[in-house]
Amino acid sequence: MRAVTLPSYGDASVLTLADVEDPVAGPGEVLLDVVATAVNRADLLQRMGFYEPPPGASRYPGLECSGRIAALGEGVAGWAVGDEVCALLSGGGYASKVAVPAGQLLPVPAGLSLVEAAALPEVACTVWSNVFMLAALQPGEVFLVHGGTSGIGTMAIQLAVRHGARVLCTVGSSEKAAAAESLGAERAIRYREEDFVEVVRDVAGGADVILDNMGAAYLPRNVKVLRTGGRLVVIGLQGGVKGELDLAALLGKRAAVHATSLRARPVAEKAAIVEAVLAAVWPAVEAGEVRPVVDRVLPLEQVREAHELLEASTHIGKVVLTL
Amino acid sequence: MRAVTLPSYGDASVLTLADVEDPVAGPGEVLLDVVATAVNRADLLQRMGFYEPPPGASRYPGLECSGRIAALGEGVAGWAVGDEVCALLSGGGYASKVAVPAGQLLPVPAGLSLVEAAALPEVACTVWSNVFMLAALQPGEVFLVHGGTSGIGTMAIQLAVRHGARVLCTVGSSEKAAAAESLGAERAIRYREEDFVEVVRDVAGGADVILDNMGAAYLPRNVKVLRTGGRLVVIGLQGGVKGELDLAALLGKRAAVHATSLRARPVAEKAAIVEAVLAAVWPAVEAGEVRPVVDRVLPLEQVREAHELLEASTHIGKVVLTL
Repeated sequence: MRAVTLPSYGDASVLTLADVEDPVAGPGEVLLDVVATAVNRADLLQRMGFYEPPPGASRYPGLECSGRIAALGEGVAGWAVGDEVCALLSGGGYASKVAVPAGQLLPVPAGLSLVEAAALPEVACTVWSNVFMLAALQPGEVFLVHGGTSGIGTMAIQLAVRHGARVLCTVGSSEKAAAAESLGAERAIRYREEDFVEVVRDVAGGADVILDNMGAAYLPRNVKVLRTGGRLVVIGLQGGVKGELDLAALLGKRAAVHATSLRARPVAEKAAIVEAVLAAVWPAVEAGEVRPVVDRVLPLEQVREAHELLEASTHIGKVVLTL
Repeated sequence: MRAVTLPSYGDASVLTLADVEDPVAGPGEVLLDVVATAVNRADLLQRMGFYEPPPGASRYPGLECSGRIAALGEGVAGWAVGDEVCALLSGGGYASKVAVPAGQLLPVPAGLSLVEAAALPEVACTVWSNVFMLAALQPGEVFLVHGGTSGIGTMAIQLAVRHGARVLCTVGSSEKAAAAESLGAERAIRYREEDFVEVVRDVAGGADVILDNMGAAYLPRNVKVLRTGGRLVVIGLQGGVKGELDLAALLGKRAAVHATSLRARPVAEKAAIVEAVLAAVWPAVEAGEVRPVVDRVLPLEQVREAHELLEASTHIGKVVLTL
């Protein structure tokens, strides 16, 4: 099969299409003919050598895809060859075939194309597991998401608004602010010109739940802007890994700092998340209340350009790659 | 009534017995004739001017007491004048009378004296709310408590052992190590001579739940010793307030840092905790499976000595004051 390989680590130019051996569906897995995959920031880290795939995962990048079932491994029930699906992967989406545990499959939501469906699994599973399962965002609470027009951000805004939360976000430009507000954010904060702590306090008195991709760089201000009982959930470290934590402030607020990732979770935990997403998010997608936001669709051959797009951070929503 | 007042902030010599006005039981409160109270580390901070009582709380120190109900405020049901009780207070225990919301009362457990009962409310409520309600310690998990022979430590060890957890703790001396192990700790780590990260990893592979009183000083090592899915709960800041948090380590473990306190919680939250303690901890105390560990009992007149005892940190368990 064809796959994007990493003969070395570095900038986007190391991404190399090559002919490689086909994967095989092990027990409990299915083999997919991949139709589309999508780019995640973790793929960029993996390309640079900062994010080793977990043990047992494919060596090729790609944390989600859509496609058709080509073969069923031993013991897989409920799916048939030819079914159109999308899937949460622990790697290997940048390839014409991928093997995936059956618990990580989702049907293509009614009304969505296979290509659009490739943009959903990572953002839906990440947002649902962190904002709703872990942080238990409640209706009426204030939710702040950093990177409001990232793939994660666009899904987080929509799901939190639908849940009845007050939603604020940070963005890098006025164009992005308009996009985030059109998705339902009450106020998109242009972090280059505004201090998010000040704006969130002014608008809403503070945040009950924060979904953060900046890590160390935002840690002190995130803690500052939390309200009593607040939950900060760190899922990215784009602003560094070691930050100063003001435990007196955290204690005074009876607040918590969580940090999580999806990729390294055991298969059973991923299946539980996928099941919850199917029950809670898919109906909203099929009803048209929540949609995948796709910045653009490129052929897999343009994978280098796709990575450069994410690095330039001018995109809004997901960058999808088709095979 | 008599009360320990704070005419100024400073060392134990500022603690001054004085005649002051009696408190009055407001709606939903009862007035207690105090029989005994106990010293908490928060009292020392308050004495030094670092811990303002929350709005509405008594200005006098004392976060728990035992005594007899002297009067019922408007709307209090289920209690009668003369009942022997102990209580979680937001202040005012170092006095011959105190007013307390009825939801913070507990009966004196069968088999315990009124004086012993004064040593229970703070440790039982703190340990139960943090280790069991918040961190949800599970049977078979590894629990690490710092300060294993503090009042909190002695209760945490007993409750966690009874729950079926593997319990490790840190202590400052061999004498304290023996005391902690006699309460059920699998291994008491002498922190002056041993590195707790190394010992916990050697003995148990890491900790699932940590109850910490050291704050910043232990933050990096606490995060290091957490296992996947681990929960660090900071309830004291004896080692400073601002520490370095390694978010990459936390994220790799999908772990969380919580920081909480009991005193500033709203009355309804305290009542919910007290109710849970009554249901879960009181039966164990009455069955003799869990006991308050009392280092010594002093008359209220010796409150200065009692504070100096806690500052010297040679005590094991609680220091109780009688009226």
